[in-house]
Amino acid sequence: MLRISLLSFHRYSISSHFLNRSPKSLARPPMAVSVSAYTTSSSKLLFRQLFEKESSTYTYLLADVSHPDKPALLIDPVDKTVERDLSLVKDLGLKLVYAMNTHVHADHVTGTGLLKSKVAGVKSVISRASKSKADHLIEAGDKIYFGDLFLEVRATPGHTLGCVTYVTGDGPNQPQPRMAFTGDAVLIRGCGRTDFQGGSSDQLYESVHSQIFTLPKDTLIYPAHDYKGFTVSTVGEEMLYNPRLTKDKETFEDIMKNLKLSYPKMIDVAVPANMVCGLQDLSKSSVESVST
Amino acid sequence: MLRISLLSFHRYSISSHFLNRSPKSLARPPMAVSVSAYTTSSSKLLFRQLFEKESSTYTYLLADVSHPDKPALLIDPVDKTVERDLSLVKDLGLKLVYAMNTHVHADHVTGTGLLKSKVAGVKSVISRASKSKADHLIEAGDKIYFGDLFLEVRATPGHTLGCVTYVTGDGPNQPQPRMAFTGDAVLIRGCGRTDFQGGSSDQLYESVHSQIFTLPKDTLIYPAHDYKGFTVSTVGEEMLYNPRLTKDKETFEDIMKNLKLSYPKMIDVAVPANMVCGLQDLSKSSVESVST
Repeated sequence: MLRISLLSFHRYSISSHFLNRSPKSLARPPMAVSVSAYTTSSSKLLFRQLFEKESSTYTYLLADVSHPDKPALLIDPVDKTVERDLSLVKDLGLKLVYAMNTHVHADHVTGTGLLKSKVAGVKSVISRASKSKADHLIEAGDKIYFGDLFLEVRATPGHTLGCVTYVTGDGPNQPQPRMAFTGDAVLIRGCGRTDFQGGSSDQLYESVHSQIFTLPKDTLIYPAHDYKGFTVSTVGEEMLYNPRLTKDKETFEDIMKNLKLSYPKMIDVAVPANMVCGLQDLSKSSVESVST
Repeated sequence: MLRISLLSFHRYSISSHFLNRSPKSLARPPMAVSVSAYTTSSSKLLFRQLFEKESSTYTYLLADVSHPDKPALLIDPVDKTVERDLSLVKDLGLKLVYAMNTHVHADHVTGTGLLKSKVAGVKSVISRASKSKADHLIEAGDKIYFGDLFLEVRATPGHTLGCVTYVTGDGPNQPQPRMAFTGDAVLIRGCGRTDFQGGSSDQLYESVHSQIFTLPKDTLIYPAHDYKGFTVSTVGEEMLYNPRLTKDKETFEDIMKNLKLSYPKMIDVAVPANMVCGLQDLSKSSVESVST
């Protein structure tokens, strides 16, 4: 019998007996959700995080699986992984209704246009402030419903002028802890650059501190990218450990001014394409309407 | 006002009012966990999925944050990302106690030896059937406790002779749905190859069907790798959509026989290193003991 300080490491001599026990035979009581859980629970939400390796982009699939139609949305889909995403949507029996962007990306081409061309009824969503074309141009305070669940829109400009953060709703039946899809406003232990596309370090600092760091500390942060293999953080964690955003504003602006980043490889292709749902050639036919 | 079939897409004219509302002002009732949630809830578990891009390896961090010491373990750490993992462990205030492997990997060098050399008290864990050296050699039916949480060990040979799947416990206060860390036994819509390291397609088929597909269908599957950017699946999903493991055994064996995969680039370096916690040169000093 091994004993390890703090933890017991049990060994069972009749291991085959243990193995053969039916996992279903034990009653499973409902769990209370704690702020320390660092996981989101909801009786309705289906959530999947998806990764595109080349641009290190995260795409997020959310659906209300308690609704008969299982309405779903994709946040920040990438053109190259549209087939993968649609295959998953199909396997899970979901109805894709929105293809959304947190902002006009400079490092990859969005999949929203392709998704619209492949799935009837899908509507593209981006902020009005991005000056892009899409079916729905959203603004701060808008709520985007999918079934009984919703995302609220928070304006978080600074990386680009039109950046928004989508936050899961507050209230009964909404996921707890809340989830914030921050785009490039807050990255895990970092943030998006502020030196093009109407970027402003002053504005980014204000956005993050007024719109994201005011959320409950257990709010899960799901960024548009990660380059080190992290998948999620929390508001509390970034408020303590983000090496840039924990600084005072002046220091932050100095850091952002002196990043000495190279010109983004994809920007000249990606930005014009992403202004029209990623489909430049189809911009007239694929963008059905602009909401007003 | 926009109206979309099935879903309402509300726009609020007083968006600034909505934005300024304190998210904390609304009461947040506890949620019931449903099998449809596809997320894990526990009042105790802190869980993080971490990715190593070069070998497309997932490392998993689990901790019992309700315990005063916040004991934590890492499953399938990679040598190249040890510093990242330790930085996260430190930020989250955890006490790393176990560095575990699901099997002797052929595609990357494990981080267990490095973790032991950098953090006093960390114990390496691998299956006895792997014939590797480690502080604790585990067998089917063993339970690995960290605080009040535990992982049970299921023998799932077939990719290698010593493969195990670690499954979160069944019972009060354990995460619901359960989580299965399947190594290379079940990958998302795939499985590990069976043509080296004592691999056997016959054995893999039996392992998966008797030890993994018998878990509750909502059990979350967290594999050791994903090459397409998926992060998680479920037992129910793989039972329906895994293109190999849903076939009958004979067809499965035919598929595995005809994969025509190239010789693994890293195998001649990784396997000998991973037999001794990833630190060949330090094998004598770093491997403190072999449990018996």
